[in-house]
Amino acid sequence: MAVYTDVGEEELAKFLAGYDLGALLSCKGIAEGVENTNYLLHTAAGYFILTLYEKRVAKAELPFFLGLMEHLATRGINCPQPVKNKKGNALAELAGRPAALVTFLEGVSVRRPNVSHCTAVGRALAQLHLAGNDFKLHRRNALGLSGWEPLARTAGKRADEVAPGLQRIIADEIAHLSAQWPQHLPRGVIHADLFPDNVFFLGDKLSGLIDFYFACDDLLSYDLAICLNAWCFEIDGSYNVTKGRALLSGYFEVRAPSVEELEALPLLARGAALRFLLTRLVDWLDVPAGALVRPKDPLEYLKKLRFHRRIDHARDYGLAA
Amino acid sequence: MAVYTDVGEEELAKFLAGYDLGALLSCKGIAEGVENTNYLLHTAAGYFILTLYEKRVAKAELPFFLGLMEHLATRGINCPQPVKNKKGNALAELAGRPAALVTFLEGVSVRRPNVSHCTAVGRALAQLHLAGNDFKLHRRNALGLSGWEPLARTAGKRADEVAPGLQRIIADEIAHLSAQWPQHLPRGVIHADLFPDNVFFLGDKLSGLIDFYFACDDLLSYDLAICLNAWCFEIDGSYNVTKGRALLSGYFEVRAPSVEELEALPLLARGAALRFLLTRLVDWLDVPAGALVRPKDPLEYLKKLRFHRRIDHARDYGLAA
Repeated sequence: MAVYTDVGEEELAKFLAGYDLGALLSCKGIAEGVENTNYLLHTAAGYFILTLYEKRVAKAELPFFLGLMEHLATRGINCPQPVKNKKGNALAELAGRPAALVTFLEGVSVRRPNVSHCTAVGRALAQLHLAGNDFKLHRRNALGLSGWEPLARTAGKRADEVAPGLQRIIADEIAHLSAQWPQHLPRGVIHADLFPDNVFFLGDKLSGLIDFYFACDDLLSYDLAICLNAWCFEIDGSYNVTKGRALLSGYFEVRAPSVEELEALPLLARGAALRFLLTRLVDWLDVPAGALVRPKDPLEYLKKLRFHRRIDHARDYGLAA
Repeated sequence: MAVYTDVGEEELAKFLAGYDLGALLSCKGIAEGVENTNYLLHTAAGYFILTLYEKRVAKAELPFFLGLMEHLATRGINCPQPVKNKKGNALAELAGRPAALVTFLEGVSVRRPNVSHCTAVGRALAQLHLAGNDFKLHRRNALGLSGWEPLARTAGKRADEVAPGLQRIIADEIAHLSAQWPQHLPRGVIHADLFPDNVFFLGDKLSGLIDFYFACDDLLSYDLAICLNAWCFEIDGSYNVTKGRALLSGYFEVRAPSVEELEALPLLARGAALRFLLTRLVDWLDVPAGALVRPKDPLEYLKKLRFHRRIDHARDYGLAA
């Protein structure tokens, strides 16, 4: 939600001279993405997003993210497409930071998804899983199962400042998930952060997916579990089974999960809830007093975790019998 | 530099239904303007800036600002033009705030203006002064001579935290300026904040003026003094007489100031320096510890004030003999 790096017009003009995009017509810092600095550029060639990668993104991983967007776009996924400079590189440097230009996608993210949005996002997720199938680069999920213990350690006993007993709850959950986590389900490239702010719509029609900076290799059905958490709960914390059914049906239309994947869904949904509980918790505890940006509430994901603990079978998420 | 008010897509769609601008295609919060929330909207009809007025802007004054932009635009000044809704109003409401849509201007603001930028801004300022001549609405300059004493009181002795003796310097300056301030120079609508970030260029050609939210009635030559301060000093604090000559010549091409206006210029430039010294000082002292936004340095304007105190005659700013 902030422009971190201020780029002067001379520096920018010099940067753009390395591309075949014509003269710069306007440049606005935009409040999109939490990790990086983003500008919306208008040049003679059209509209583009300029991203400057700030320190939380490892430079060595950028070829994976940019390569993935390019790969997916050539397979019909509507996502930002990296623009290459005259040297043929998608990755360049600006203001001392790694920087890339991608095409601008029309569309608006929805704050309160309806049922038809859920169907559309289910379909798009499955399309993404299929399209990523033959992508050659790999990236470990740093926020997967093995990443949860270090996050829990970072929060430490301060977790209990956020909710009494939370440190214990997290430790028990990690122990349970580590023992039960499925090892042999289908893997592939997952988006890993397909929240409503990363999906664009024009009316009810899904127009594009953005923000691939958490994408990695992991269980495909874990990505589905992340989406159930992100799209199918109401603001009051209740699970909307109609939205769940819509999202799952949309997914199944495009890719049919195995019986094992479905059986694992409640466990994967617990893991997905724990992952966002942990990162939100660490961010919450890390905010300096007086900061203008208020981090997201970790307790939203504690509620979701508790919900999934009571689920016995994937059909409780709204699967048609 | 921040989006203060977050607008949901449903709310926005409802708001836009009141206009003849077609479907919403995208909406990005932009980091422009310090006082208000700004979004860059793309609709079927084109690109627009949506502004939500936050509490520092008085609702009663909005018709002045919007009316002025409309007035200037019809007289050939390239500035954002308010878009009227189906009811014929430029001012509406969104997310509980007064809100307005204006046309989007192409162009890029320059961080380090060169001489030709200074000529262009001098011309544009004079054009604005002439175009504002027959504008019917009025607004007192709340940050003019009579507004400086209250600002100095707000800072109080804490001014000395920023520079030793600053409280005394300010008090002496206000006393001097109050005694000497010219009463009979030509008045009219002034921009009052025509800094480089409020002027757009395409190459060296000035493409538009923005941010009229400090515009008011005051001495035209005071506006010229504000521009001298904002455009003709280098980062090291030195006055660039070539830029000064360029800005003044540009202005004179379009509007020739009287001998009295020129004679008053050193005094007006002191006043203009004091005005920005004071508002920056108050903002500086008001920032909470740990805030992400760093306010502008008040001492930059103390240096400018000291420079103008040593100036005897307007020709020292670079006027051709």
